[in-house]
Amino acid sequence: MDVVNRYITINNHVNGAPQDSDFELKASPLALSLDPASNVVIVKNLYVSIDPYQLNRMKSFSASQKTSDFAVAIVPGEAIDTYGVGKVVASTNPEFDKGDIVVGLLNWGEFTVIKAGGMLNKLNTMGFPLSYHVGILGFSGLTAYAGLFDICKPKKGEKVFVSAALGSVGNLVGQFAKLSGCYVVGCAGSKEKVALLKEKLGFDDAFNYREETDLNSTLKSYFPNGIDIYFDNVGGEMQEVAVSNMNINGRIAVCGVISEYLDSEKRAAPSMIEVIYKRIKIQGFLAGDYLNIFGDFLSTTCDHLRTGKIQPLEDISDGVESIPSAFISLYRGQNIGKKIVKIAEE
Amino acid sequence: MDVVNRYITINNHVNGAPQDSDFELKASPLALSLDPASNVVIVKNLYVSIDPYQLNRMKSFSASQKTSDFAVAIVPGEAIDTYGVGKVVASTNPEFDKGDIVVGLLNWGEFTVIKAGGMLNKLNTMGFPLSYHVGILGFSGLTAYAGLFDICKPKKGEKVFVSAALGSVGNLVGQFAKLSGCYVVGCAGSKEKVALLKEKLGFDDAFNYREETDLNSTLKSYFPNGIDIYFDNVGGEMQEVAVSNMNINGRIAVCGVISEYLDSEKRAAPSMIEVIYKRIKIQGFLAGDYLNIFGDFLSTTCDHLRTGKIQPLEDISDGVESIPSAFISLYRGQNIGKKIVKIAEE
Repeated sequence: MDVVNRYITINNHVNGAPQDSDFELKASPLALSLDPASNVVIVKNLYVSIDPYQLNRMKSFSASQKTSDFAVAIVPGEAIDTYGVGKVVASTNPEFDKGDIVVGLLNWGEFTVIKAGGMLNKLNTMGFPLSYHVGILGFSGLTAYAGLFDICKPKKGEKVFVSAALGSVGNLVGQFAKLSGCYVVGCAGSKEKVALLKEKLGFDDAFNYREETDLNSTLKSYFPNGIDIYFDNVGGEMQEVAVSNMNINGRIAVCGVISEYLDSEKRAAPSMIEVIYKRIKIQGFLAGDYLNIFGDFLSTTCDHLRTGKIQPLEDISDGVESIPSAFISLYRGQNIGKKIVKIAEE
Repeated sequence: MDVVNRYITINNHVNGAPQDSDFELKASPLALSLDPASNVVIVKNLYVSIDPYQLNRMKSFSASQKTSDFAVAIVPGEAIDTYGVGKVVASTNPEFDKGDIVVGLLNWGEFTVIKAGGMLNKLNTMGFPLSYHVGILGFSGLTAYAGLFDICKPKKGEKVFVSAALGSVGNLVGQFAKLSGCYVVGCAGSKEKVALLKEKLGFDDAFNYREETDLNSTLKSYFPNGIDIYFDNVGGEMQEVAVSNMNINGRIAVCGVISEYLDSEKRAAPSMIEVIYKRIKIQGFLAGDYLNIFGDFLSTTCDHLRTGKIQPLEDISDGVESIPSAFISLYRGQNIGKKIVKIAEE
């Protein structure tokens, strides 16, 4: 049996913010009957993750190209891999059977063909919705957990600042930090988001950076006693002012740099004199290095979800054709929490 | 008995590179007869340390002012404290006797009056020249040792880059790294310095940054397989290109930022995308945090000095009146190794 597999590609390398015209919805036939001698799994994609870092992979010169196994450059015209959840519809891999719910490296499309060695695991949903396993119980969650606990090591009473605090990672960082007894302030790009941070997610305070004219003064007013931990999702000027407002032994987890993805000239130039005198650590990290703590992360987060101590925050669009607009929305600050596209019903 | 104490002050806050006109040699009478009820030590200064970070303390806005106990701002007209070695000439402090050789926080002058609680210790020279205890066996050595071993944790075979490699700290970092089995390249500001690094100090390679027009290409050619550790004494563009040439899990110890001391606009703006994908750590530090390992540092370094595995590199000027030119020489790249002023014979 053949199906038509529709999937998203980029037409060209992307410069600056992504536009609709950068993307194309392609369609090609896909045979579901497999050669028994092959070792292949065909997955019907159900939920796929939409992440800001993908923009970096779409550039003509991708910094990730030579430096990371986790995010190789995207080739125009080809399918775009992403973290996702799906259902096995055909398999000659003895580890997977038709009907298995799986999680792993799928793509921005309706089906994924996974050869032996591809990143794919059977999913134990543990009673949670499938979409959770793309975000809060997937790599977004692991990123927040690893970055906060391994890089920043929060202590009770410490002051934590999170940028892009309503993003897929930021909202969880703030919630985890609150559960660690920290004072947490987030910034986001609208009044509605600020309200959500304070009212739904339990942040101690939050501000709309678009309304601020002097970010240094803003941080001073929100952190009169200084910042101990800055979880950086944006880079640029915000990182500079965070350094200026940081306390001795401050830690910065560099998770994302949306400002640099959009414009490589918009780099942070933090005062290294302050970095020295305040013994500040600025540390980049990737969740892929933390698979060894995935089990801890998962059990902790599931417990918090069950007891209602952590709120999931999902922003789900429908259908493969909505992927480009879902992705573009990240750069317009239109997403509320984890951006996911639901491709199909189970 | 009274003596005349000559000491150096700044006339004004210093902007940009220091000039002769920024300094003044003052003289004031000093009574060596002490009230027996006082708790004071008067030290005749013998060797005093000349360090680049002092420039930061001389600025009208000193970043250190609010952030560090180790380096408070210098007030124009007042004596300038510094690390040094001296001899007790009068004491009403029961811990010190006349004739004791001491090490601690002295000043850029001929005598230092130290009240109870001042940083002063009796010095066990262990058979080494007094000047060694101002540099290689003092805070310069501890800075190199702590920054390299605690922040960078070098492993055998790793590639290490050191800027200002013939400075008081840089030359020791390179020598310690060589003893750890690393491949070490240094940069400095003249042909003569490059020759010294390679021939006297055992660096694997070295280059004169003043002769290079494209520092990124330069680092690529010296580190075709990338940099694992960058010991940063200069900040600015060199830090940016070091990040660009860094390997995964690279570590940068930020020790000094001579470029920022001179011009606060000359800040490094390293690619945070590379910091993330390569999981780079950028960490500021101060030797004062590492007094707990001073004993380890001292015994290790003394052993290496005795067996000739580490070469001391000192640049000693004579007399209190030479302090301004000695200090200014640091910013003109005229010093070779640890800059020290010998104030008096023992």
